[in-house]
Amino acid sequence: MSMDKPRLQKQFEFCLEADKEKRIMRRTLLSDGRECENDAEHAWHAALMCVLLSEYSNEPIDVLRTVTMLLIHDIVEIDAGDTYAYDESAKLSQNDRELKAAERIFGILPEDQAKKLRALWDEFEACETPESKFAHAMDNIQPAMLNNSTNGRVWEENKIKLSQILERNKITPEGSKKLWDYSMNNFITPSVKNKKIIDDR
Amino acid sequence: MSMDKPRLQKQFEFCLEADKEKRIMRRTLLSDGRECENDAEHAWHAALMCVLLSEYSNEPIDVLRTVTMLLIHDIVEIDAGDTYAYDESAKLSQNDRELKAAERIFGILPEDQAKKLRALWDEFEACETPESKFAHAMDNIQPAMLNNSTNGRVWEENKIKLSQILERNKITPEGSKKLWDYSMNNFITPSVKNKKIIDDR
Repeated sequence: MSMDKPRLQKQFEFCLEADKEKRIMRRTLLSDGRECENDAEHAWHAALMCVLLSEYSNEPIDVLRTVTMLLIHDIVEIDAGDTYAYDESAKLSQNDRELKAAERIFGILPEDQAKKLRALWDEFEACETPESKFAHAMDNIQPAMLNNSTNGRVWEENKIKLSQILERNKITPEGSKKLWDYSMNNFITPSVKNKKIIDDR
Repeated sequence: MSMDKPRLQKQFEFCLEADKEKRIMRRTLLSDGRECENDAEHAWHAALMCVLLSEYSNEPIDVLRTVTMLLIHDIVEIDAGDTYAYDESAKLSQNDRELKAAERIFGILPEDQAKKLRALWDEFEACETPESKFAHAMDNIQPAMLNNSTNGRVWEENKIKLSQILERNKITPEGSKKLWDYSMNNFITPSVKNKKIIDDR
């Protein structure tokens, strides 16, 4: 029975299970434009950006909690798959799929860590604390930065409208007004001007 | 001139440069055995393991410092390339290549952050503090866990000897005696028994 496994064995089983996140592909091209990134790469990038940019959080944040949140924020996608930010039909079932995944995947850990990580993931999803708001800002700004670096190709290919980007990013300025302004001016607006993003304002 | 760039622009230039780490391939197969992992995936995995396993550090550690160290520990390989742990000729030039890379890459950041990250990378390389020792333990145990999950195929294909693994892991028990014992018993010894690792003791 799982309850009888030694603590360290459960922890390593979780560590090995997490490896599967490297196979969950996202719809963001790497900056060289040759391939899309996966969830593990995205989580690393967002966590690194959090360390480097935390000074711009609207409110003071616990950086370790925010980084940990970012390291695990997509782990449920091992079971639930990546739901593209602008796929409205997939988003209908997303919540159910992800809750089931969270039960199974965090449940591999010893009970205290399972609870702690699950609470952190719930906090990210609820997006009410300064840490979760800043984590969402990283989660949204990192792909915008990459999409701009490939001249908006992903936005163009998926026929993304500015209203969709603004809707998704409603939460971004709550994490960091300053980083949202930078992202809007430097990553999003150039692709609106170049007609890679459909201007439906 | 680089000096005149706004702080945030320098920070985002570094964030975009870091994206290239996703293209630096390592010689560790993912647990599904179909492909090798890259530096960004490895850094994410080691950072996550650090959060989950820090309780086993021989000495108390600052987890955020250790996680940050792991997030950036291979970034110099963007210029210097990955040096396989058991490629003795490549290791001769590794230090020079990596020092040059550190100058250029951390130099993209604003001066205070460049200094801070460079100092953290130097600390990792020197491997004298509790944080850097634990980071090295993660850096070594993560690939051993994956190599075991693919039944030692990478060790076998590269004709790796047990003495080489023990030499590389001399530092691992200084980070965590308990995790080194677990790695030896559960990840390394099975492949010695199955003759995937050459037993030259």
